[in-house]
Amino acid sequence: MTVRLRLDLSYDGTNFSGWAAQPGLRTVQQVLEEWIQRVLRLPEQPTVTCAGRTDAGVHARGQVVHLDLDPAVVVRPSRSTSTTDQDLPSVLQRRLARALPDDLRVHRVSVAPPGFDARFAATGRRYTYRLWDLGSRQDPLLRSTVAVVNGELDLTTMNLAAVGWEGLHDFAAFCKRREGATTIRTLTRCRAARVTTGERAGTIEVDVRADAFCHSMVRSLVGALVTVGTGRRNLAWARDLLQRRDRSGDITVMPAHGLCLEEVGYPADDQLAARAVEARATRTLD
Amino acid sequence: MTVRLRLDLSYDGTNFSGWAAQPGLRTVQQVLEEWIQRVLRLPEQPTVTCAGRTDAGVHARGQVVHLDLDPAVVVRPSRSTSTTDQDLPSVLQRRLARALPDDLRVHRVSVAPPGFDARFAATGRRYTYRLWDLGSRQDPLLRSTVAVVNGELDLTTMNLAAVGWEGLHDFAAFCKRREGATTIRTLTRCRAARVTTGERAGTIEVDVRADAFCHSMVRSLVGALVTVGTGRRNLAWARDLLQRRDRSGDITVMPAHGLCLEEVGYPADDQLAARAVEARATRTLD
Repeated sequence: MTVRLRLDLSYDGTNFSGWAAQPGLRTVQQVLEEWIQRVLRLPEQPTVTCAGRTDAGVHARGQVVHLDLDPAVVVRPSRSTSTTDQDLPSVLQRRLARALPDDLRVHRVSVAPPGFDARFAATGRRYTYRLWDLGSRQDPLLRSTVAVVNGELDLTTMNLAAVGWEGLHDFAAFCKRREGATTIRTLTRCRAARVTTGERAGTIEVDVRADAFCHSMVRSLVGALVTVGTGRRNLAWARDLLQRRDRSGDITVMPAHGLCLEEVGYPADDQLAARAVEARATRTLD
Repeated sequence: MTVRLRLDLSYDGTNFSGWAAQPGLRTVQQVLEEWIQRVLRLPEQPTVTCAGRTDAGVHARGQVVHLDLDPAVVVRPSRSTSTTDQDLPSVLQRRLARALPDDLRVHRVSVAPPGFDARFAATGRRYTYRLWDLGSRQDPLLRSTVAVVNGELDLTTMNLAAVGWEGLHDFAAFCKRREGATTIRTLTRCRAARVTTGERAGTIEVDVRADAFCHSMVRSLVGALVTVGTGRRNLAWARDLLQRRDRSGDITVMPAHGLCLEEVGYPADDQLAARAVEARATRTLD
């Protein structure tokens, strides 16, 4: 019998080669799996599954993962004999807080509700892409989270383009194609706004939400927005991107460090299993 | 004839050995003076004077400096013949924006009003010290600006101690002594609060303001606040620190990276000269 745990985590993507474990590279998945094995003294390295597989250099403040553990194999600490599956989450949370490097923090460990799957039960992902243009005051303390654009961005034009992409579409123009995978997604929100208060005042934040994203999609959407925002292309060009069936060479993929996975949404507990079945089915435009 | 310029700047202190130029070290003053000389092709390296000489690792978002230039020696660019003392500020600002490393940004260059002196005309300095305790959610993206405290901090107790220090006092207990220099200062505000909204929610920010600070004073004040906030010392200990005439060995100097010079205040233009005379006079408790 295994217990499924949900972990909520944040990381600074700067020194990670992305999420997915790759031989010889420091990735979030690899570091997390190694430390879970060590702090729980597991005989084998566990496998964690995440909601959003971020690329090298991309940050996350609302990443969600799950993993399945056999509570019986967890070695009890000598000081305490109360480590049962009941308090396994708090033991793991406390030990990871001490053990993990400071660019990776697990905020919460909890027993997942029945039917929970970090990836397939998710109903939506919210990313923020941050930009400084000539109208921004660049704050050196925040520079690892913001991409610089040379020029002034016209937010009205950007949002006219962005709104036109919202809805159920084939985003092939914005996606690195993967064999057998669809590029049809529901973009629920895509809007750019200049922050007016606080430490990030003057920064342009692009709020991008969808049921799911394909590879490089957010950075390509923002790249196309920057292209129309600086006037190098017009709104008709932006609109017609949705008609293309292949990745567009004229769309810039924005730098990784401006992107942050902010939040993953899940349905109510009694809808989790149904959602996972639905998400595994291939999307179509019908 | 020289023209005095005011520069407003920010820096990430992580990779600087503090403000003041020191042989063989990368300091903010050294990098700034070198680049001003290079982008204006000056025959000699100019000297800049700052409002707050920050230590190694301390950040600034509201640092102010002045420097005196002879507009005649500024080499005009070949493309433009309009570089007079009138537009020297905008030329310098534009060139520094392109030239400076990305951990040092000059936001604004302007001709200083008569009587302006970045250091002596300043009426106040505002610093923020940021802390994460056990009640905080640590955000890896902001970790270079926040110090971690092991334990939970009692803000009520901290603020009772902090309020007791406000006013005109001899802060000898909190200061690294310098020969011939007074440690008498007017602490206009010292308060701790937990941020409730936005990216820094859960972070404790200590707002510390004074006419001026002596060396290591803010980090020592916060160190003493942490000591009472965790219950290791009581309020009587905190209050009695003001009676000491020497630096106290039992006050922890907090880590540099939690500290940021946020703002420097100046009087109205017609009060600048009078303020500079007043600030040069040695403070007394009378």
